Amino acid sequence: MTQPIILLTGFEPFEQEPLNPSWEAVRALDGWQCEGARVVARQLPCVFGVALQTLDTLLAEFKPVLVLCVGQAGGRSQLSLERVAINVDDARIADNAGRQPIDRPIYGDGPAAYFSTLPIKGMVKAMRAAGAPAEVSQTAGTFVCNHVFYGLMHSLAQHKPAVRGGFMHIPYIPSQAVRHPGQPSLALDIVIDGLRAALQSAMTLQQDVFEGGGQLH
Amino acid sequence: MTQPIILLTGFEPFEQEPLNPSWEAVRALDGWQCEGARVVARQLPCVFGVALQTLDTLLAEFKPVLVLCVGQAGGRSQLSLERVAINVDDARIADNAGRQPIDRPIYGDGPAAYFSTLPIKGMVKAMRAAGAPAEVSQTAGTFVCNHVFYGLMHSLAQHKPAVRGGFMHIPYIPSQAVRHPGQPSLALDIVIDGLRAALQSAMTLQQDVFEGGGQLH
Amino acid sequence: MTQPIILLTGFEPFEQEPLNPSWEAVRALDGWQCEGARVVARQLPCVFGVALQTLDTLLAEFKPVLVLCVGQAGGRSQLSLERVAINVDDARIADNAGRQPIDRPIYGDGPAAYFSTLPIKGMVKAMRAAGAPAEVSQTAGTFVCNHVFYGLMHSLAQHKPAVRGGFMHIPYIPSQAVRHPGQPSLALDIVIDGLRAALQSAMTLQQDVFEGGGQLH
Amino acid sequence: MTQPIILLTGFEPFEQEPLNPSWEAVRALDGWQCEGARVVARQLPCVFGVALQTLDTLLAEFKPVLVLCVGQAGGRSQLSLERVAINVDDARIADNAGRQPIDRPIYGDGPAAYFSTLPIKGMVKAMRAAGAPAEVSQTAGTFVCNHVFYGLMHSLAQHKPAVRGGFMHIPYIPSQAVRHPGQPSLALDIVIDGLRAALQSAMTLQQDVFEGGGQLH
Repeated sequence: MTQPIILLTGFEPFEQEPLNPSWEAVRALDGWQCEGARVVARQLPCVFGVALQTLDTLLAEFKPVLVLCVGQAGGRSQLSLERVAINVDDARIADNAGRQPIDRPIYGDGPAAYFSTLPIKGMVKAMRAAGAPAEVSQTAGTFVCNHVFYGLMHSLAQHKPAVRGGFMHIPYIPSQAVRHPGQPSLALDIVIDGLRAALQSAMTLQQDVFEGGGQLH
Repeated sequence: MTQPIILLTGFEPFEQEPLNPSWEAVRALDGWQCEGARVVARQLPCVFGVALQTLDTLLAEFKPVLVLCVGQAGGRSQLSLERVAINVDDARIADNAGRQPIDRPIYGDGPAAYFSTLPIKGMVKAMRAAGAPAEVSQTAGTFVCNHVFYGLMHSLAQHKPAVRGGFMHIPYIPSQAVRHPGQPSLALDIVIDGLRAALQSAMTLQQDVFEGGGQLH
Repeated sequence: MTQPIILLTGFEPFEQEPLNPSWEAVRALDGWQCEGARVVARQLPCVFGVALQTLDTLLAEFKPVLVLCVGQAGGRSQLSLERVAINVDDARIADNAGRQPIDRPIYGDGPAAYFSTLPIKGMVKAMRAAGAPAEVSQTAGTFVCNHVFYGLMHSLAQHKPAVRGGFMHIPYIPSQAVRHPGQPSLALDIVIDGLRAALQSAMTLQQDVFEGGGQLH
Repeated sequence: MTQPIILLTGFEPFEQEPLNPSWEAVRALDGWQCEGARVVARQLPCVFGVALQTLDTLLAEFKPVLVLCVGQAGGRSQLSLERVAINVDDARIADNAGRQPIDRPIYGDGPAAYFSTLPIKGMVKAMRAAGAPAEVSQTAGTFVCNHVFYGLMHSLAQHKPAVRGGFMHIPYIPSQAVRHPGQPSLALDIVIDGLRAALQSAMTLQQDVFEGGGQLH
């Protein structure tokens, strides 16, 4: 019998950055044993459409029991677990293939949004207990990160409704913030500690923790 | 033949504020003639559930052709037209009746989200042209504002699919910011100018303008 | 006997802005009668050195009893009365004549800093009472605004030690913020109301109000 | 012949924090050999007046060739080297002895301000090269940090004009940010790496680097 797989994805660099901390973090966990499952870490291109084709291929190949996609959010200060993915692409900058869609649905027949099916409150609590500053986020934006998050949830809803999935945004790492005066960052090892705690929590919590994580606006 | 009605709502004060700028702004437009329609401005309580009952009663009474709900977003700098309402209440503070739901669906049988059916890009453009700083927002939060926005869109989707609706968050007005050192504000007359331009644009645009208004994350 | 003069200065536009709100605000008060004095409003160039020559000429010409220089601080939310001017030019961008000094003393023989000699706490209190959001600021930056503030205090200290002077930074006005999504602004009439209240307070308070206005860092 | 001493100070915790990252960072460098000198790290109380008595005693005891005082700046994102200390205490909160001075000069006979005599631009450059996000700051606030910075420079100016001194503010560390949702932090080991690079740079640079580090306002 094969071991259950946790699929963890990060992105290739974009917006002139020499690296993408999401990829640096997830690849450090490739092969990690987590609550009886094995982590498979893979990179996604920062390209509308192609990122989802890559993700769907990975879903078909690995048949994971849990999926967490991770992306860079330059300017944010803490690990942020996204609550909801929305069915729209509205790109402020071009992606790595020069595409810049505006107000275009990701799937024409998809619902307006999908909520994360991960226990996000429990995961935030676990990350904090592990020393990693973390919070719930109410928006994943409208660029490739939200695109992948929505596409992931759509594929799971269509084909694997029992498989849980979600998305986490992470800050710059310090080596990036060095070139962005005033910008916050989080050290790679803390991001990795946070990811570990988040995955353990997601694998063990059958039901989410009852704890506030909202915003007034 | 009766004149078409635009329903405009604002909220009562909350969080120890002596006033709610959303109500101050919308009541100034009560009775205003806009592109052949008449504006009816009404106040909603800042209470989960009760706010939606009040709103539904107003929808039934006035049978508006267009609905814009407005709410205070203390800390924001510009008029922000919300893109999407999500099906969850997660209250960081108690509402005016002491209710503080956590991770509770607004409608158990509702979809995860509704997009605004207003031409938000065109309205932002019109507000700017009128001298009112404005932007698209990707999250209305998870408090009573999002609750009302979602409930509005749900009611319209169920009973009046041809009626367009949406939500706008507005900053503190200066008299409030006086008691919040460092916080941004927008003068009431500029908010009102912005609302006028936004409503005119919503009444005349059949299709939204093709213009970016997204966020990277 | 001639009437006492209050000298009020604003700047010409810089950094690609079509206007400078400091000039728009102060020129609206040119000729205003304030507590027995007459306001004279003049414009300063946004040029290191030349701004100070212009200011010194105005000081010699008008022999004011009180001087308030005003400048734009794009990105700030409230009227901010500066506490201290420091003896250094360190320009992040070029001034309107293309000059971009780095770590250069404004006056080689001047002290490291001058405190404002205006009753800044009382003025902040008066502005708030007049409905204008206001605060004390601990830094005027290191560009032409601080340059003028320091030069003003140096000239007064050398030649007119009994004349009180200071500096106020003001936010963008809404017409500017329209082109800067997300940025705060303050309406021109509120800025003008604030300036009026600040000047009246400065003319009548012999001693500053005892009230906190500091920052932890 | 005795080895030259670099005096490095951090603070005790304040404002309900269980620790002060400035003390955690500097004590890790106690005894470190830096460019021929030995680092002596000591803790200062977060109390107006007493902190300066403690510092003066340390200056007399160790006769350092270089002094860097370090303090916590909760909410800042990067290591920030302060440019200038001003002669005023204006406390937004009470210090650890319950003192809360307002607009009180630190030394009645002192100048308005002292500039850091450290090569702050070079030190920022060195910290960045070492992977630690860093910047120049134009204000150290008006609480105990600025108080100590000013008192240090005053004592050196009076008694040891050849000894160079300055102040660095540092962010929360992650374990603190865990309890402050949304707040930035910097890992302790990066802070320590940054301090090492900064001290090496300060010990070897006779003259500061010519590089911008100013602010518009």
